Amino acid sequence: MTITSPVPGTHGRLNSKVPSEQLAELRDIFAQRRPGFSLDAPFYADPTVFSCDMQGIFAKQWIFAASIAEIPEPGDYVTVEFGPSALILLRTEDEDGNPGGVNVLHNVCRHRGARVLTERAGTTGNMVCGYHSWTYNETGALIHASAPGQADFDKSCYGLKTAHSKIVAGLIFVCMADEPPTDFDEVAKIIEPYLAPHEIASTKVAFQQELVEEGNWKLVMENNRECYHCDGHPELACSLFPTWGLSEGIIPPHLEEAWMRNLEAEAALQDRCDRYGLPYKVIEELDTRVAGFRISRESLDGEGESFSASGRRLSKKLLGDLRDFRLGRCSLHLQPNSWFHLLGDHVITFGAFPVNEHQTVVRTTWLVASDAVDGVDYNLDELTHTWKMTNVQDRAFVEMCQTGASSPAYEPGPYMKSEYQVEAFISWYVERMREYLGVDAVSSTGEVTA
Amino acid sequence: MTITSPVPGTHGRLNSKVPSEQLAELRDIFAQRRPGFSLDAPFYADPTVFSCDMQGIFAKQWIFAASIAEIPEPGDYVTVEFGPSALILLRTEDEDGNPGGVNVLHNVCRHRGARVLTERAGTTGNMVCGYHSWTYNETGALIHASAPGQADFDKSCYGLKTAHSKIVAGLIFVCMADEPPTDFDEVAKIIEPYLAPHEIASTKVAFQQELVEEGNWKLVMENNRECYHCDGHPELACSLFPTWGLSEGIIPPHLEEAWMRNLEAEAALQDRCDRYGLPYKVIEELDTRVAGFRISRESLDGEGESFSASGRRLSKKLLGDLRDFRLGRCSLHLQPNSWFHLLGDHVITFGAFPVNEHQTVVRTTWLVASDAVDGVDYNLDELTHTWKMTNVQDRAFVEMCQTGASSPAYEPGPYMKSEYQVEAFISWYVERMREYLGVDAVSSTGEVTA
Amino acid sequence: MTITSPVPGTHGRLNSKVPSEQLAELRDIFAQRRPGFSLDAPFYADPTVFSCDMQGIFAKQWIFAASIAEIPEPGDYVTVEFGPSALILLRTEDEDGNPGGVNVLHNVCRHRGARVLTERAGTTGNMVCGYHSWTYNETGALIHASAPGQADFDKSCYGLKTAHSKIVAGLIFVCMADEPPTDFDEVAKIIEPYLAPHEIASTKVAFQQELVEEGNWKLVMENNRECYHCDGHPELACSLFPTWGLSEGIIPPHLEEAWMRNLEAEAALQDRCDRYGLPYKVIEELDTRVAGFRISRESLDGEGESFSASGRRLSKKLLGDLRDFRLGRCSLHLQPNSWFHLLGDHVITFGAFPVNEHQTVVRTTWLVASDAVDGVDYNLDELTHTWKMTNVQDRAFVEMCQTGASSPAYEPGPYMKSEYQVEAFISWYVERMREYLGVDAVSSTGEVTA
Repeated sequence: MTITSPVPGTHGRLNSKVPSEQLAELRDIFAQRRPGFSLDAPFYADPTVFSCDMQGIFAKQWIFAASIAEIPEPGDYVTVEFGPSALILLRTEDEDGNPGGVNVLHNVCRHRGARVLTERAGTTGNMVCGYHSWTYNETGALIHASAPGQADFDKSCYGLKTAHSKIVAGLIFVCMADEPPTDFDEVAKIIEPYLAPHEIASTKVAFQQELVEEGNWKLVMENNRECYHCDGHPELACSLFPTWGLSEGIIPPHLEEAWMRNLEAEAALQDRCDRYGLPYKVIEELDTRVAGFRISRESLDGEGESFSASGRRLSKKLLGDLRDFRLGRCSLHLQPNSWFHLLGDHVITFGAFPVNEHQTVVRTTWLVASDAVDGVDYNLDELTHTWKMTNVQDRAFVEMCQTGASSPAYEPGPYMKSEYQVEAFISWYVERMREYLGVDAVSSTGEVTA
Repeated sequence: MTITSPVPGTHGRLNSKVPSEQLAELRDIFAQRRPGFSLDAPFYADPTVFSCDMQGIFAKQWIFAASIAEIPEPGDYVTVEFGPSALILLRTEDEDGNPGGVNVLHNVCRHRGARVLTERAGTTGNMVCGYHSWTYNETGALIHASAPGQADFDKSCYGLKTAHSKIVAGLIFVCMADEPPTDFDEVAKIIEPYLAPHEIASTKVAFQQELVEEGNWKLVMENNRECYHCDGHPELACSLFPTWGLSEGIIPPHLEEAWMRNLEAEAALQDRCDRYGLPYKVIEELDTRVAGFRISRESLDGEGESFSASGRRLSKKLLGDLRDFRLGRCSLHLQPNSWFHLLGDHVITFGAFPVNEHQTVVRTTWLVASDAVDGVDYNLDELTHTWKMTNVQDRAFVEMCQTGASSPAYEPGPYMKSEYQVEAFISWYVERMREYLGVDAVSSTGEVTA
Repeated sequence: MTITSPVPGTHGRLNSKVPSEQLAELRDIFAQRRPGFSLDAPFYADPTVFSCDMQGIFAKQWIFAASIAEIPEPGDYVTVEFGPSALILLRTEDEDGNPGGVNVLHNVCRHRGARVLTERAGTTGNMVCGYHSWTYNETGALIHASAPGQADFDKSCYGLKTAHSKIVAGLIFVCMADEPPTDFDEVAKIIEPYLAPHEIASTKVAFQQELVEEGNWKLVMENNRECYHCDGHPELACSLFPTWGLSEGIIPPHLEEAWMRNLEAEAALQDRCDRYGLPYKVIEELDTRVAGFRISRESLDGEGESFSASGRRLSKKLLGDLRDFRLGRCSLHLQPNSWFHLLGDHVITFGAFPVNEHQTVVRTTWLVASDAVDGVDYNLDELTHTWKMTNVQDRAFVEMCQTGASSPAYEPGPYMKSEYQVEAFISWYVERMREYLGVDAVSSTGEVTA
């Protein structure tokens, strides 16, 4: 086991370094993680581990933050917070006066540290801090600060700090690292052909929901990465084949009929995709690369169009240049904090934003075609019903596990075969954290294995 | 002073060991406790001391959890939580299909750690975890877990963890230790003859109250162990002789009349008990054994039957095979977390369940004869009035002390003679914790005395 | 850098000493504070720094607690809490039966630590603890404790702990140190002539407001020490000249007219003060002595009488023996926790009472002449409007900064020239804490400079 640099502690607290006794234990639990099993309790309940997660994962990786549909016009912004960080995503204008890229700015005034923008979303010109009116332009440069008698005050030293952004088919990712991982570019090239036909840039927000879940962010993600629990989602179960997560050879007898229906629907969907030139192959690199992901286009049960009880479309307007509603769901899972469903009639984006070791905000956004009209082309309650219910059910599952993790009777339990994507998420997480902490894996015999 | 094994830290947190600097201080405050005085502030306000309490007391001793009247039928269960632990108490069936013993199971699914039963009480067959439907039988054995493609999945490795139970005259005690203290069996034999005639197994729950008190569990217990404060309980004061806790020779002049009345009532009660074959002698072994207790049958003021203003019965149905209402109260105090009053017409059980260093849940249960009918044989408001009021008053007392304990002006104060049972509780606690921490007592001169 | 005595930890917690690794960092951040810039994040967000603040500042310095108008009669009391401390300020009777001095007692019963007085304010004779009726007289002496059988119980050992008090022109200051700083006496002599003419002892409380601000106490004080943000106070801006905090030579062009108006008003005010024998000179010793302060009498904009939109009086009764309403505001700033405005028609006192590292209570009290009648001489809503609004606005500013301080993007920002009093407050604070911690200043090159 190689021990390298010391580990920073919690932002805004003393202990800029984790105390040495605790650091040794921290490294041990990462070195000794037992593959195939859920994590030890401190991963879910300890504030120091949380702080390390924020630094080793959320300050280093590309993080899904919003979609371009949330900030369609120059000057539109949305704010996001994860752990101790607060960011502004600001839509810029290109040279022709059209909506351009996205600037990412730390939402912390360089004068006295106040939040510069205090709303969750809005439209702004130059950004004026509400405390002393320090004024920043769209790049974060400080362009005005009253400084009577201070001719030598150098505004150029006090621009808002910036972070990186990348837009992939209308999804906005941010990275706070000085040198963002480059691997993400390759992934962007792979997933873009799946996503692009849905033209997120030509959608609008129909609804956005924020749920505060009383659970560690990793429990939120684990829950999202398996459908072993989908009996607990009666609404969603209408849309998903009950064999989700299973494969040839491990289909239990009572699911054989569903499996056959699934195979038929898959074949029909693939024909349709071939006809329209839409990719559908499952690509799964969840823990084999830095920008771990899984993408696929899979059929939906019933009429196969959307997340309704019958499988029938929920919005009458097709997205982008799609020519058919029966396109199932193009689903994308991205490490560490997001998942997406793109359908013929709407798109749903999900982002998990950690608050502290026992709370996570899940922000869900429903997007429909820009010209779809509520009450005419879609009914908002119907559009959002399945995932509103599913999210609330998932919250309860996450919270059941969070309370359990602190019990002395808790010990890591086995991930089942149908939970292999949970295991992949955890493996990805442990690998990134080992890199961050400079820790090698230790086998159960105590030997270094990586 | 002998220092032995290191001390585990807080469940679900890093610091599986208490940091060395803190450990030395922890041992010191236990070694140096000054007899006759309340504890130093960290005993009431420090989270590490709380965590040690949970491990040194609540995970080692027999803990009162509920009475058999709360789970009368096979399949009935009640859940309890103290500190980080969550337990299920499940009534079983005997070989003849009648209500049997009580199984105690940790309420933590062995798959992903979810709470298995999420209600406070209810009736269940096999227990199905709400997350992935892992199903356990009444012994906690895992009898079903969907595991497609995993023929080798060994269910026998994943039963719910169990704890010990013991039923004493209808009161259920649990113990999480591998080897429960055996001393409790002796105590059970001593107290059973006092309790048995009230036949708790033939009672039903008339009412149950849960109060969250903003105070350390030891302040809750200290408050319960003296009546020096009973001027603050006007309702209860009607029932208790104002000389409670005093004895011959220390009766202040203004209480002499009450003392005489008390002596007369005691004599009459003892005659009655002798006639019915009921034990009444005070047996007090509060800090002289591991299963510290005090039991007695004492007269009540007024008519001497029950906790009403006049002393008159509150339920018309006599309990068990009792033949007289004028039996005063059979009162039992048990270390570390319970007390009980058994009267001719009803029984009240009290359990204190620590939440964290500054919060404790007190669960109070009123039991009446199984065949007593609300509105006919008893009036629920009248039945519960005295102790509902008394509990709320006690909560205020506990909370006044909790805020004080963190003040720099706080220093341990003297327990008065009438508070000798508080001192006994604290002595018992300190002795158990010294055993747990491997610490000897240190005299005020710094010499080891034990 | 000299390192002296170890630093006590948090009251009521283990770690009576700050752990050594943390202590080194604590000393470093005080030694290395960069003049002219806001503090590093842990000063605003770390619980250990807060605990040190309570011990190094609030337990050592003279702290403003209340005014004599709040406890006009013998037996009147008010309670204050800051950090872990709780104090009673009790008005005594002099030898002639008239209102006398103020006794300061720790509000912690010496028996079991309960709060003795549980109301924020009231009138009491002897003070009776609500738990076991231990009774203390006005000096804190224990005069009654029921102690049957304890003839040797020595009441004289268990009086309430006391603190020091000092009344300056009707303002009550308390000090918990064994040996209060003597420097305060000099300051009292300097400020008394400014304050005395307003005769606080002849006022009454018209209104008192308590705001809980979600911010560190130092952010509350920093906010109070500059008017660079006064664009955010539209109500207050009517009264203050917009050039507040500026001086000749650094007046920006757009404020020149206001500056001239200010100069004229100042000249007129000074004439008036000379005529009435009222001192008005600015005396500013904010960080050059232990009892740092600033006092002045400054003109108000508009009619120059009070904090109304027009500058017109808000109460028709002149205070004390004043003979003119047009007296501007006599304003006093005192380190560490108070500020005051004394006008012809009313007085406002402000005290900041820290709760924990992220919460502070600001108690604001409006005083009018004893014989002023609500609805006749003043309208309560009008009287309190400007500062009620201003306080709420200030709370928002403080809270914007508190959230920012924990962000990894936060770094200390520059105090502007118009914020020099903020810098003075911080310098005063750092100097006191260096004394307390036994730390010298370290220059940015690492050399010891003090």
